[in-house]
Amino acid sequence: MAEQAQRIVLASRPVGEPKASDFRIEEFSVPTPADGQVLLRTIWLSLDPYMRGRMSDGPSYATPVPIGGVMEAGTVSEVIASNNPNFAKGDIVLARAGWQTHALSDGKGLSRIDPKLAPVSTAIGVLGMPGMTAYTGLLDIGKPQPRETVVVAAASGAVGSAVGQIAKIKGARAIGIAGGRDKCAFVKQELGFDDCLDHREPNLGARLREACPQGIDVYFENVGGAVFEAVFPLLNAFARIPVCGLIAHYNDTEAKAPKWADGLMRAVLTKRLTIRGFIVSDFAGRRDDFLRDMSTWVREGKVKYKEFVTEGLESAPEAFMGLLKGANFGKQLVRVGPDEI
Amino acid sequence: MAEQAQRIVLASRPVGEPKASDFRIEEFSVPTPADGQVLLRTIWLSLDPYMRGRMSDGPSYATPVPIGGVMEAGTVSEVIASNNPNFAKGDIVLARAGWQTHALSDGKGLSRIDPKLAPVSTAIGVLGMPGMTAYTGLLDIGKPQPRETVVVAAASGAVGSAVGQIAKIKGARAIGIAGGRDKCAFVKQELGFDDCLDHREPNLGARLREACPQGIDVYFENVGGAVFEAVFPLLNAFARIPVCGLIAHYNDTEAKAPKWADGLMRAVLTKRLTIRGFIVSDFAGRRDDFLRDMSTWVREGKVKYKEFVTEGLESAPEAFMGLLKGANFGKQLVRVGPDEI
Repeated sequence: MAEQAQRIVLASRPVGEPKASDFRIEEFSVPTPADGQVLLRTIWLSLDPYMRGRMSDGPSYATPVPIGGVMEAGTVSEVIASNNPNFAKGDIVLARAGWQTHALSDGKGLSRIDPKLAPVSTAIGVLGMPGMTAYTGLLDIGKPQPRETVVVAAASGAVGSAVGQIAKIKGARAIGIAGGRDKCAFVKQELGFDDCLDHREPNLGARLREACPQGIDVYFENVGGAVFEAVFPLLNAFARIPVCGLIAHYNDTEAKAPKWADGLMRAVLTKRLTIRGFIVSDFAGRRDDFLRDMSTWVREGKVKYKEFVTEGLESAPEAFMGLLKGANFGKQLVRVGPDEI
Repeated sequence: MAEQAQRIVLASRPVGEPKASDFRIEEFSVPTPADGQVLLRTIWLSLDPYMRGRMSDGPSYATPVPIGGVMEAGTVSEVIASNNPNFAKGDIVLARAGWQTHALSDGKGLSRIDPKLAPVSTAIGVLGMPGMTAYTGLLDIGKPQPRETVVVAAASGAVGSAVGQIAKIKGARAIGIAGGRDKCAFVKQELGFDDCLDHREPNLGARLREACPQGIDVYFENVGGAVFEAVFPLLNAFARIPVCGLIAHYNDTEAKAPKWADGLMRAVLTKRLTIRGFIVSDFAGRRDDFLRDMSTWVREGKVKYKEFVTEGLESAPEAFMGLLKGANFGKQLVRVGPDEI
């Protein structure tokens, strides 16, 4: 009897917050690689907010996951069988194998990870997509200058934590926003942000104003909602707003009209703001720069990272639902593989 | 008895649309230049939408005109007396003398205009601030590529007419929006835009969709309001929106929440839009490029311009109120000086 594999598919498109019944776990036989293919076994599965977008079929930069389709995800995977000359059994690769224990690949888009250089999980974290999102958005759009003030929310998360630490490396002030006292303490004490505000406490706007006496020059937008409302009046002339996510709105079922929205274009004009949306692949040409700089910073201890791990593929739906509510504390990973690698 | 001069001052801050009583014409004695000063006589006065902002004391990139202060404006002026070694009687200069017949200057910020090169009025038009606003906003922010689609409103006006014609020079499609059949015919037939839509006719959104079958890559934003609503759903991925004005909102007395506003940030993300506010002085370093290119294009007939002239300083308030409603047909100028220069 063939070895059994598991996958998690999209059972239904969520209305508002995703719920457990929007996902379905399925068993299938571990497939056999055809000529030119490799068989991958998932070790680490990355959970990221963008996946909420893939569950809906509204307009987006990416096609949605079809109903019944395997949820998409970046993974760290092991080649456990290979009919492809470019990969050998035992290779550890960065893949997009999705929410499943096993997957076939023709080798396209796989890249080998050297387990000696860094823990392999960093390939989907600080040295992977979230780290590069922080690096390119902050440096290529935000362009922080020494002594400028950079604000980022979800500051203990995969992207936010890197944004603030890179801002510090560039000589800027870094102000984080996070949910809860523990996260804020970590962001200040471990990550070295100049300050971190708890968005669960009242009067975020007033506290942010106090934390940013010179106003805000770069707001790295990854959440939207109440944080942007607090940031908005503090933006300085020529402020830059890289926009990589709006997690506060991902579960919106209808358009909301926050009170600042209609003043946005007016502020763009009077403050000469730059607002630019991006996804990490827009800056694919910066990959070598990113890997060189970020691996150096991690090695030197200038950029620290925190991982938040749940165990087993079956934990993914709940972990993902928690991620959208900020239940994670650090980069959200699912350990799928049986081994410690 | 000293010769009499006239000036128009801000009598009161307008609530909504400016009205005649918000302005006051005053007589004063033509002043005498002190040591180092020149006496300027205004020949041409430029009226531009940005002046509406100067009449209000809300947050802006510029300080407002004080109550009782002379309305600000760029002018083409003649030096009629000089105690400044850098300027001689008879020099024609670009100045910011404001809404008045005479003004003193210490020479700072004045630049001499050569009447042999082009009609001197172009120094406050196609070869001046409006032309450079079009040039820098379109080329440095909008960055139109060959075969891309560029949309601009107020297309027969000083800025819009230049935007579309420069877009054509760069190989892009230019779609204008203007108020009325005559303006649209002029924009298409004289200025060579690919199409021009009358925003006074119904169904602007549907007509714009038809005129832009490949979507919109650059929207040069100078009006806001209903035009932006029509443009918004047609924006392509990676579209660029230079924002130099929002004339449709300048008379707003309270914030409006147009139905597209709350989707703006979401579209910024999903379409990776770039929205950037600017004023022409942000690109001061591009002045030489602008003058070289634009004077060449004007000479070669690749950029045409139209002037809309009212006579006499006293005509300025009504002309300005008309400008905010689109009553002008071409660059709005007031001929203040007694002579044809």
